[in-house]
Amino acid sequence: MAYELHDWPGIQGRGEFVRLALEASGAPYVDVARGAETAGQGVPAMLRCLNDSKLPHPPLAPPFLKDGALVVGQTSAILLYLAPTLKLVGRSEQLRVWTHQIQLAIDDAVIEAHDTHHPLGSGLNDEDPLPEALRRTDEFCRIRMPQYLQWFERLIVRNPAGPRQLAGGKLSYADLSLFQLIEGLRYAFPNAARKALAKTPEIVQLHDRVAALPKLAEYLRSERRIPFNEQGIFRCYPERDLA
Amino acid sequence: MAYELHDWPGIQGRGEFVRLALEASGAPYVDVARGAETAGQGVPAMLRCLNDSKLPHPPLAPPFLKDGALVVGQTSAILLYLAPTLKLVGRSEQLRVWTHQIQLAIDDAVIEAHDTHHPLGSGLNDEDPLPEALRRTDEFCRIRMPQYLQWFERLIVRNPAGPRQLAGGKLSYADLSLFQLIEGLRYAFPNAARKALAKTPEIVQLHDRVAALPKLAEYLRSERRIPFNEQGIFRCYPERDLA
Repeated sequence: MAYELHDWPGIQGRGEFVRLALEASGAPYVDVARGAETAGQGVPAMLRCLNDSKLPHPPLAPPFLKDGALVVGQTSAILLYLAPTLKLVGRSEQLRVWTHQIQLAIDDAVIEAHDTHHPLGSGLNDEDPLPEALRRTDEFCRIRMPQYLQWFERLIVRNPAGPRQLAGGKLSYADLSLFQLIEGLRYAFPNAARKALAKTPEIVQLHDRVAALPKLAEYLRSERRIPFNEQGIFRCYPERDLA
Repeated sequence: MAYELHDWPGIQGRGEFVRLALEASGAPYVDVARGAETAGQGVPAMLRCLNDSKLPHPPLAPPFLKDGALVVGQTSAILLYLAPTLKLVGRSEQLRVWTHQIQLAIDDAVIEAHDTHHPLGSGLNDEDPLPEALRRTDEFCRIRMPQYLQWFERLIVRNPAGPRQLAGGKLSYADLSLFQLIEGLRYAFPNAARKALAKTPEIVQLHDRVAALPKLAEYLRSERRIPFNEQGIFRCYPERDLA
Protein backbone atom coordinates (compact mmCIF):
# COMPACT_ATOMS: atom_id res chain seq x y z
CA MET A 1 0.00 0.00 0.00
CA ALA A 2 1.24 3.49 -0.84
CA TYR A 3 2.36 5.76 1.98
CA GLU A 4 0.31 8.91 2.53
CA LEU A 5 2.38 12.05 3.01
CA HIS A 6 0.46 14.97 4.52
CA ASP A 7 1.91 18.47 4.43
CA TRP A 8 0.84 21.98 3.48
CA PRO A 9 0.68 22.27 -0.31
CA GLY A 10 2.30 24.98 -2.42
CA ILE A 11 5.67 24.85 -0.66
CA GLN A 12 8.46 22.33 -0.22
CA GLY A 13 8.13 22.69 3.55
CA ARG A 14 9.35 20.28 6.20
CA GLY A 15 7.64 17.52 4.26
CA GLU A 16 10.28 17.88 1.55
CA PHE A 17 12.78 16.01 3.72
CA VAL A 18 10.39 13.06 3.81
CA ARG A 19 9.53 13.45 0.13
CA LEU A 20 13.21 13.20 -0.82
CA ALA A 21 13.55 9.94 1.12
CA LEU A 22 10.45 8.49 -0.57
CA GLU A 23 11.50 9.68 -4.04
CA ALA A 24 15.13 8.55 -3.73
CA SER A 25 13.91 5.07 -2.76
CA GLY A 26 11.18 4.89 -5.37
CA ALA A 27 8.66 4.21 -2.62
CA PRO A 28 5.03 4.68 -3.70
CA TYR A 29 3.28 7.55 -1.92
CA VAL A 30 0.32 9.86 -2.25
CA ASP A 31 0.92 13.54 -1.57
CA VAL A 32 -2.48 13.97 0.03
CA ALA A 33 -2.82 17.72 0.55
CA ARG A 34 -1.63 18.38 -3.01
CA GLY A 35 -4.37 16.16 -4.41
CA ALA A 36 -7.79 17.21 -5.66
CA GLU A 37 -10.58 17.74 -3.17
CA THR A 38 -12.92 16.13 -5.69
CA ALA A 39 -10.82 12.98 -5.28
CA GLY A 40 -11.17 13.13 -1.49
CA GLN A 41 -7.74 14.67 -1.08
CA GLY A 42 -6.48 18.24 -0.63
CA VAL A 43 -6.06 20.20 2.59
CA PRO A 44 -9.48 19.16 3.97
CA ALA A 45 -8.40 15.51 3.83
CA MET A 46 -5.17 16.36 5.65
CA LEU A 47 -7.03 18.28 8.35
CA ARG A 48 -9.60 15.50 8.75
CA CYS A 49 -6.75 13.10 9.45
CA LEU A 50 -4.91 15.55 11.73
CA ASN A 51 -8.04 16.22 13.77
CA ASP A 52 -9.35 12.65 13.84
CA SER A 53 -10.30 12.19 17.49
CA LYS A 54 -9.95 8.41 17.18
CA LEU A 55 -6.22 8.53 16.40
CA PRO A 56 -4.33 7.07 19.35
CA HIS A 57 -1.14 8.87 18.27
CA PRO A 58 -2.31 12.21 16.82
CA PRO A 59 0.42 14.32 15.19
CA LEU A 60 1.02 17.81 16.58
CA ALA A 61 1.08 19.37 13.11
CA PRO A 62 1.95 18.60 9.48
CA PRO A 63 4.00 17.05 8.06
CA PHE A 64 2.92 13.58 9.02
CA LEU A 65 3.03 10.20 7.34
CA LYS A 66 0.31 7.60 7.24
CA ASP A 67 1.40 4.01 6.72
CA GLY A 68 -1.78 1.97 6.82
CA ALA A 69 -3.29 2.58 10.26
CA LEU A 70 -0.06 4.01 11.65
CA VAL A 71 0.43 7.78 11.72
CA VAL A 72 3.85 9.30 12.43
CA GLY A 73 4.55 13.02 12.84
CA GLN A 74 7.66 15.20 13.29
CA THR A 75 9.95 15.22 10.25
CA SER A 76 12.90 13.58 11.96
CA ALA A 77 10.75 10.91 13.62
CA ILE A 78 9.18 10.10 10.23
CA LEU A 79 12.67 9.59 8.78
CA LEU A 80 13.68 7.49 11.80
CA TYR A 81 10.64 5.32 11.14
CA LEU A 82 10.97 5.05 7.36
CA ALA A 83 14.72 4.65 7.00
CA PRO A 84 15.13 0.93 7.78
CA THR A 85 12.34 0.00 5.34
CA LEU A 86 13.62 2.35 2.64
CA LYS A 87 17.20 1.17 3.26
CA LEU A 88 18.30 4.73 3.96
CA VAL A 89 20.22 3.95 7.14
CA GLY A 90 22.86 1.43 8.20
CA ARG A 91 21.70 -1.68 9.98
CA SER A 92 23.57 -1.30 13.24
CA GLU A 93 21.90 0.45 16.15
CA GLN A 94 24.96 2.66 16.50
CA LEU A 95 24.75 3.85 12.90
CA ARG A 96 21.02 4.39 13.26
CA VAL A 97 21.53 6.72 16.23
CA TRP A 98 24.47 8.49 14.55
CA THR A 99 22.48 9.12 11.37
CA HIS A 100 19.63 10.47 13.49
CA GLN A 101 21.99 12.72 15.41
CA ILE A 102 23.08 14.31 12.12
CA GLN A 103 19.45 14.67 11.05
CA LEU A 104 18.62 16.50 14.29
CA ALA A 105 21.47 18.95 13.67
CA ILE A 106 20.14 19.56 10.15
CA ASP A 107 16.74 20.14 11.69
CA ASP A 108 18.23 22.72 14.07
CA ALA A 109 19.89 24.48 11.13
CA VAL A 110 16.55 24.51 9.29
CA ILE A 111 14.81 26.07 12.30
CA GLU A 112 17.48 28.76 12.50
CA ALA A 113 17.25 29.50 8.77
CA HIS A 114 13.47 29.72 9.13
CA ASP A 115 13.69 32.02 12.14
CA THR A 116 15.62 34.60 10.14
CA HIS A 117 12.44 35.69 8.42
CA HIS A 118 10.16 35.75 11.43
CA PRO A 119 12.40 36.23 14.45
CA LEU A 120 9.56 37.50 16.56
CA GLY A 121 7.41 34.40 16.61
CA SER A 122 6.25 31.54 14.43
CA GLY A 123 2.58 32.40 14.94
CA LEU A 124 2.92 35.85 13.45
CA ASN A 125 2.00 35.68 9.83
CA ASP A 126 3.17 38.98 8.49
CA GLU A 127 6.74 39.79 7.68
CA ASP A 128 8.49 41.03 10.75
CA PRO A 129 10.00 44.48 10.88
CA LEU A 130 13.07 44.58 8.73
CA PRO A 131 15.68 45.63 11.36
CA GLU A 132 15.05 42.54 13.49
CA ALA A 133 15.07 40.17 10.53
CA LEU A 134 18.22 41.83 9.18
CA ARG A 135 20.02 41.44 12.47
CA ARG A 136 19.06 37.80 12.86
CA THR A 137 19.89 37.00 9.23
CA ASP A 138 23.29 38.66 9.50
CA GLU A 139 24.19 36.57 12.52
CA PHE A 140 22.93 33.39 10.84
CA CYS A 141 24.91 34.06 7.65
CA ARG A 142 28.16 35.13 9.29
CA ILE A 143 28.32 32.71 12.22
CA ARG A 144 25.80 29.92 12.39
CA MET A 145 25.65 28.77 8.75
CA PRO A 146 29.46 28.35 8.50
CA GLN A 147 29.48 26.54 11.87
CA TYR A 148 26.94 23.99 10.72
CA LEU A 149 28.50 23.50 7.28
CA GLN A 150 31.97 23.03 8.71
CA TRP A 151 30.66 20.44 11.13
CA PHE A 152 29.09 18.46 8.25
CA GLU A 153 32.38 18.77 6.35
CA ARG A 154 34.21 17.34 9.35
CA LEU A 155 31.86 14.36 9.46
CA ILE A 156 32.38 13.40 5.86
CA VAL A 157 36.16 13.83 6.12
CA ARG A 158 36.28 11.68 9.25
CA ASN A 159 33.77 9.04 8.17
CA PRO A 160 35.56 5.75 8.87
CA ALA A 161 33.71 4.22 5.88
CA GLY A 162 35.14 6.86 3.52
CA PRO A 163 34.32 10.38 2.36
CA ARG A 164 31.35 9.54 0.17
CA GLN A 165 28.59 9.85 2.78
CA LEU A 166 28.00 11.50 6.14
CA ALA A 167 27.34 8.26 8.02
CA GLY A 168 28.44 4.74 7.17
CA GLY A 169 29.26 3.29 3.78
CA LYS A 170 25.96 3.84 1.99
CA LEU A 171 23.62 6.70 1.21
CA SER A 172 21.43 7.64 4.19
CA TYR A 173 18.56 10.02 4.77
CA ALA A 174 21.06 12.38 6.42
CA ASP A 175 22.78 12.79 3.04
CA LEU A 176 19.44 13.58 1.39
CA SER A 177 18.57 16.08 4.13
CA LEU A 178 21.95 17.80 3.83
CA PHE A 179 21.35 18.08 0.08
CA GLN A 180 18.07 19.83 0.82
CA LEU A 181 19.62 22.13 3.42
CA ILE A 182 22.30 23.23 0.93
CA GLU A 183 19.67 23.77 -1.77
CA GLY A 184 17.66 25.92 0.60
CA LEU A 185 20.62 27.95 1.84
CA ARG A 186 21.75 28.62 -1.72
CA TYR A 187 18.26 29.84 -2.58
CA ALA A 188 17.73 32.01 0.48
CA PHE A 189 21.23 33.40 1.00
CA PRO A 190 23.14 32.97 -2.29
CA ASN A 191 26.14 35.10 -1.33
CA ALA A 192 26.49 33.80 2.20
CA ALA A 193 26.06 30.20 1.06
CA ARG A 194 28.64 30.59 -1.70
CA LYS A 195 31.19 31.97 0.75
CA ALA A 196 30.55 29.30 3.36
CA LEU A 197 30.45 26.40 0.89
CA ALA A 198 33.74 27.50 -0.68
CA LYS A 199 35.36 26.17 2.50
CA THR A 200 33.47 22.87 2.54
CA PRO A 201 34.24 21.10 -0.76
CA GLU A 202 33.36 17.59 0.43
CA ILE A 203 29.75 18.38 1.25
CA VAL A 204 29.38 20.26 -2.03
CA GLN A 205 30.49 17.09 -3.83
CA LEU A 206 28.12 15.03 -1.72
CA HIS A 207 25.32 17.44 -2.65
CA ASP A 208 26.14 16.96 -6.34
CA ARG A 209 26.25 13.17 -6.04
CA VAL A 210 22.81 13.19 -4.38
CA ALA A 211 21.41 15.45 -7.11
CA ALA A 212 22.69 13.00 -9.74
CA LEU A 213 21.05 9.90 -8.26
CA PRO A 214 18.80 8.76 -11.13
CA LYS A 215 15.53 8.65 -9.17
CA LEU A 216 16.27 11.90 -7.43
CA ALA A 217 17.36 13.65 -10.63
CA GLU A 218 14.07 12.58 -12.20
CA TYR A 219 12.17 13.92 -9.20
CA LEU A 220 14.01 17.25 -9.22
CA ARG A 221 13.09 17.75 -12.88
CA SER A 222 9.44 16.81 -12.27
CA GLU A 223 6.51 19.05 -11.38
CA ARG A 224 6.36 17.31 -8.02
CA ARG A 225 9.38 19.39 -6.98
CA ILE A 226 7.78 22.73 -6.18
CA PRO A 227 10.25 25.61 -6.69
CA PHE A 228 11.38 27.43 -3.57
CA ASN A 229 9.20 30.43 -2.81
CA GLU A 230 8.64 33.06 -0.14
CA GLN A 231 5.97 31.04 1.68
CA GLY A 232 8.34 28.15 2.47
CA ILE A 233 11.12 27.57 5.00
CA PHE A 234 13.83 29.10 2.83
CA ARG A 235 12.91 32.60 1.62
CA CYS A 236 15.03 34.84 -0.54
CA TYR A 237 15.24 38.50 0.46
CA PRO A 238 18.38 39.69 -1.37
CA GLU A 239 18.75 42.81 0.77
CA ARG A 240 19.28 40.59 3.84
CA ASP A 241 21.99 38.38 2.31
CA LEU A 242 25.67 39.08 2.85
CA ALA A 243 27.16 41.48 0.33
CA MET B 1 31.45 1.73 33.51
CA ALA B 2 29.79 5.03 34.37
CA TYR B 3 28.40 7.17 31.58
CA GLU B 4 30.04 10.56 31.08
CA LEU B 5 27.60 13.44 30.65
CA HIS B 6 29.14 16.58 29.18
CA ASP B 7 27.26 19.88 29.32
CA TRP B 8 27.89 23.49 30.31
CA PRO B 9 28.01 23.73 34.11
CA GLY B 10 26.06 26.18 36.25
CA ILE B 11 22.75 25.66 34.48
CA GLN B 12 20.28 22.81 34.00
CA GLY B 13 20.55 23.28 30.23
CA ARG B 14 19.64 20.78 27.56
CA GLY B 15 21.69 18.22 29.46
CA GLU B 16 19.03 18.21 32.17
CA PHE B 17 16.77 16.07 29.98
CA VAL B 18 19.53 13.45 29.85
CA ARG B 19 20.34 13.89 33.54
CA LEU B 20 16.71 13.18 34.48
CA ALA B 21 16.78 9.94 32.49
CA LEU B 22 20.03 8.85 34.16
CA GLU B 23 18.85 9.85 37.63
CA ALA B 24 15.40 8.29 37.31
CA SER B 25 17.02 4.98 36.30
CA GLY B 26 19.75 5.12 38.90
CA ALA B 27 22.35 4.81 36.15
CA PRO B 28 25.88 5.70 37.24
CA TYR B 29 27.26 8.79 35.52
CA VAL B 30 29.92 11.44 35.87
CA ASP B 31 28.86 15.04 35.24
CA VAL B 32 32.18 15.90 33.65
CA ALA B 33 32.05 19.67 33.19
CA ARG B 34 30.81 20.12 36.76
CA GLY B 35 33.81 18.23 38.12
CA ALA B 36 37.06 19.71 39.39
CA GLU B 37 39.76 20.61 36.92
CA THR B 38 42.28 19.26 39.41
CA ALA B 39 40.59 15.88 38.95
CA GLY B 40 40.91 16.11 35.16
CA GLN B 41 37.31 17.22 34.78
CA GLY B 42 35.62 20.61 34.37
CA VAL B 43 34.96 22.56 31.19
CA PRO B 44 38.49 21.97 29.81
CA ALA B 45 37.87 18.20 29.88
CA MET B 46 34.55 18.68 28.08
CA LEU B 47 36.14 20.86 25.40
CA ARG B 48 39.03 18.42 24.96
CA CYS B 49 36.52 15.70 24.23
CA LEU B 50 34.38 17.94 21.98
CA ASN B 51 37.41 19.01 19.95
CA ASP B 52 39.15 15.64 19.83
CA SER B 53 40.14 15.35 16.18
CA LYS B 54 40.26 11.57 16.44
CA LEU B 55 36.55 11.20 17.22
CA PRO B 56 34.84 9.56 14.24
CA HIS B 57 31.46 10.93 15.36
CA PRO B 58 32.19 14.37 16.85
CA PRO B 59 29.24 16.11 18.50
CA LEU B 60 28.20 19.51 17.16
CA ALA B 61 27.96 21.01 20.65
CA PRO B 62 27.20 20.07 24.27
CA PRO B 63 25.36 18.26 25.67
CA PHE B 64 26.86 14.97 24.66
CA LEU B 65 27.18 11.58 26.28
CA LYS B 66 30.20 9.33 26.35
CA ASP B 67 29.56 5.63 26.82
CA GLY B 68 32.97 3.99 26.69
CA ALA B 69 34.38 4.83 23.27
CA LEU B 70 31.00 5.88 21.90
CA VAL B 71 30.05 9.56 21.87
CA VAL B 72 26.46 10.66 21.19
CA GLY B 73 25.29 14.25 20.82
CA GLN B 74 21.94 16.05 20.40
CA THR B 75 19.68 15.74 23.43
CA SER B 76 16.95 13.76 21.70
CA ALA B 77 19.42 11.41 20.02
CA ILE B 78 21.07 10.75 23.39
CA LEU B 79 17.68 9.79 24.83
CA LEU B 80 16.93 7.63 21.79
CA TYR B 81 20.22 5.85 22.42
CA LEU B 82 19.93 5.48 26.18
CA ALA B 83 16.26 4.62 26.53
CA PRO B 84 16.32 0.88 25.70
CA THR B 85 19.21 0.27 28.13
CA LEU B 86 17.65 2.41 30.87
CA LYS B 87 14.24 0.79 30.22
CA LEU B 88 12.70 4.19 29.58
CA VAL B 89 10.89 3.23 26.38
CA GLY B 90 8.60 0.42 25.29
CA ARG B 91 10.14 -2.51 23.48
CA SER B 92 8.22 -2.31 20.21
CA GLU B 93 9.66 -0.32 17.34
CA GLN B 94 6.34 1.50 17.01
CA LEU B 95 6.40 2.64 20.62
CA ARG B 96 10.04 3.65 20.28
CA VAL B 97 9.23 5.94 17.34
CA TRP B 98 6.11 7.31 19.04
CA THR B 99 8.00 8.14 22.23
CA HIS B 100 10.65 9.85 20.14
CA GLN B 101 8.03 11.83 18.24
CA ILE B 102 6.77 13.22 21.56
CA GLN B 103 10.32 14.02 22.64
CA LEU B 104 10.91 15.99 19.42
CA ALA B 105 7.77 18.05 20.08
CA ILE B 106 9.03 18.77 23.60
CA ASP B 107 12.33 19.78 22.07
CA ASP B 108 10.52 22.20 19.73
CA ALA B 109 8.66 23.70 22.69
CA VAL B 110 11.97 24.12 24.54
CA ILE B 111 13.50 25.93 21.54
CA GLU B 112 10.52 28.26 21.38
CA ALA B 113 10.66 28.98 25.12
CA HIS B 114 14.37 29.66 24.78
CA ASP B 115 13.87 31.96 21.80
CA THR B 116 11.62 34.25 23.82
CA HIS B 117 14.63 35.72 25.57
CA HIS B 118 16.90 36.11 22.56
CA PRO B 119 14.60 36.33 19.55
CA LEU B 120 17.25 37.97 17.44
CA GLY B 121 19.77 35.16 17.36
CA SER B 122 21.28 32.46 19.50
CA GLY B 123 24.82 33.76 19.00
CA LEU B 124 24.09 37.15 20.51
CA ASN B 125 25.05 37.07 24.14
CA ASP B 126 23.46 40.18 25.51
CA GLU B 127 19.82 40.48 26.34
CA ASP B 128 17.91 41.53 23.29
CA PRO B 129 15.97 44.78 23.21
CA LEU B 130 12.92 44.46 25.38
CA PRO B 131 10.21 45.22 22.76
CA GLU B 132 11.21 42.24 20.59
CA ALA B 133 11.49 39.87 23.52
CA LEU B 134 8.16 41.10 24.88
CA ARG B 135 6.41 40.52 21.58
CA ARG B 136 7.82 37.05 21.13
CA THR B 137 7.10 36.09 24.75
CA ASP B 138 3.52 37.31 24.52
CA GLU B 139 2.88 35.16 21.47
CA PHE B 140 4.53 32.15 23.10
CA CYS B 141 2.49 32.52 26.31
CA ARG B 142 -0.86 33.19 24.69
CA ILE B 143 -0.74 30.81 21.72
CA ARG B 144 2.13 28.37 21.50
CA MET B 145 2.41 27.20 25.12
CA PRO B 146 -1.31 26.31 25.36
CA GLN B 147 -1.11 24.55 21.96
CA TYR B 148 1.74 22.34 23.09
CA LEU B 149 0.25 21.59 26.52
CA GLN B 150 -3.15 20.73 25.08
CA TRP B 151 -1.52 18.36 22.62
CA PHE B 152 0.28 16.54 25.47
CA GLU B 153 -3.01 16.40 27.38
CA ARG B 154 -4.66 14.80 24.36
CA LEU B 155 -1.94 12.14 24.19
CA ILE B 156 -2.35 11.07 27.79
CA VAL B 157 -6.15 11.02 27.54
CA ARG B 158 -6.01 8.93 24.37
CA ASN B 159 -3.18 6.61 25.42
CA PRO B 160 -4.54 3.13 24.67
CA ALA B 161 -2.53 1.81 27.64
CA GLY B 162 -4.27 4.20 30.04
CA PRO B 163 -3.89 7.79 31.25
CA ARG B 164 -0.83 7.29 33.43
CA GLN B 165 1.85 7.98 30.82
CA LEU B 166 2.23 9.75 27.49
CA ALA B 167 3.28 6.64 25.57
CA GLY B 168 2.63 3.00 26.38
CA GLY B 169 2.00 1.39 29.73
CA LYS B 170 5.21 2.34 31.53
CA LEU B 171 7.18 5.45 32.35
CA SER B 172 9.24 6.69 29.38
CA TYR B 173 11.78 9.42 28.83
CA ALA B 174 9.01 11.49 27.22
CA ASP B 175 7.26 11.63 30.62
CA LEU B 176 10.48 12.81 32.26
CA SER B 177 11.02 15.43 29.57
CA LEU B 178 7.46 16.71 29.89
CA PHE B 179 8.02 17.01 33.65
CA GLN B 180 11.07 19.16 32.93
CA LEU B 181 9.23 21.29 30.36
CA ILE B 182 6.44 22.00 32.86
CA GLU B 183 8.98 22.83 35.59
CA GLY B 184 10.71 25.25 33.23
CA LEU B 185 7.52 26.92 32.02
CA ARG B 186 6.32 27.39 35.60
CA TYR B 187 9.63 29.02 36.48
CA ALA B 188 9.88 31.28 33.44
CA PHE B 189 6.23 32.24 32.95
CA PRO B 190 4.39 31.52 36.23
CA ASN B 191 1.15 33.28 35.30
CA ALA B 192 0.97 32.00 31.75
CA ALA B 193 1.84 28.46 32.84
CA ARG B 194 -0.77 28.48 35.62
CA LYS B 195 -3.47 29.57 33.17
CA ALA B 196 -2.50 27.05 30.52
CA LEU B 197 -2.05 24.14 32.95
CA ALA B 198 -5.45 24.81 34.54
CA LYS B 199 -6.87 23.32 31.33
CA THR B 200 -4.59 20.28 31.25
CA PRO B 201 -5.13 18.38 34.52
CA GLU B 202 -3.82 15.03 33.29
CA ILE B 203 -0.34 16.28 32.47
CA VAL B 204 -0.21 18.13 35.78
CA GLN B 205 -0.91 14.83 37.54
CA LEU B 206 1.70 13.11 35.40
CA HIS B 207 4.18 15.84 36.37
CA ASP B 208 3.41 15.20 40.04
CA ARG B 209 3.79 11.43 39.69
CA VAL B 210 7.18 11.91 38.03
CA ALA B 211 8.29 14.30 40.79
CA ALA B 212 7.33 11.66 43.38
CA LEU B 213 9.36 8.81 41.85
CA PRO B 214 11.73 7.92 44.71
CA LYS B 215 14.98 8.24 42.75
CA LEU B 216 13.84 11.41 41.07
CA ALA B 217 12.54 12.96 44.29
CA GLU B 218 15.94 12.27 45.85
CA TYR B 219 17.66 13.89 42.88
CA LEU B 220 15.42 16.97 42.93
CA ARG B 221 16.29 17.51 46.61
CA SER B 222 20.01 17.05 45.98
CA GLU B 223 22.64 19.63 45.13
CA ARG B 224 23.01 17.99 41.75
CA ARG B 225 19.76 19.70 40.72
CA ILE B 226 20.92 23.23 39.99
CA PRO B 227 18.12 25.77 40.53
CA PHE B 228 16.75 27.48 37.44
CA ASN B 229 18.55 30.74 36.72
CA GLU B 230 18.77 33.45 34.08
CA GLN B 231 21.66 31.81 32.23
CA GLY B 232 19.66 28.66 31.41
CA ILE B 233 17.00 27.77 28.88
CA PHE B 234 14.11 28.93 31.05
CA ARG B 235 14.59 32.47 32.32
CA CYS B 236 12.20 34.41 34.51
CA TYR B 237 11.54 38.03 33.57
CA PRO B 238 8.28 38.78 35.42
CA GLU B 239 7.52 41.85 33.31
CA ARG B 240 7.26 39.65 30.21
CA ASP B 241 4.86 37.09 31.71
CA LEU B 242 1.11 37.33 31.16
CA ALA B 243 -0.65 39.49 33.73
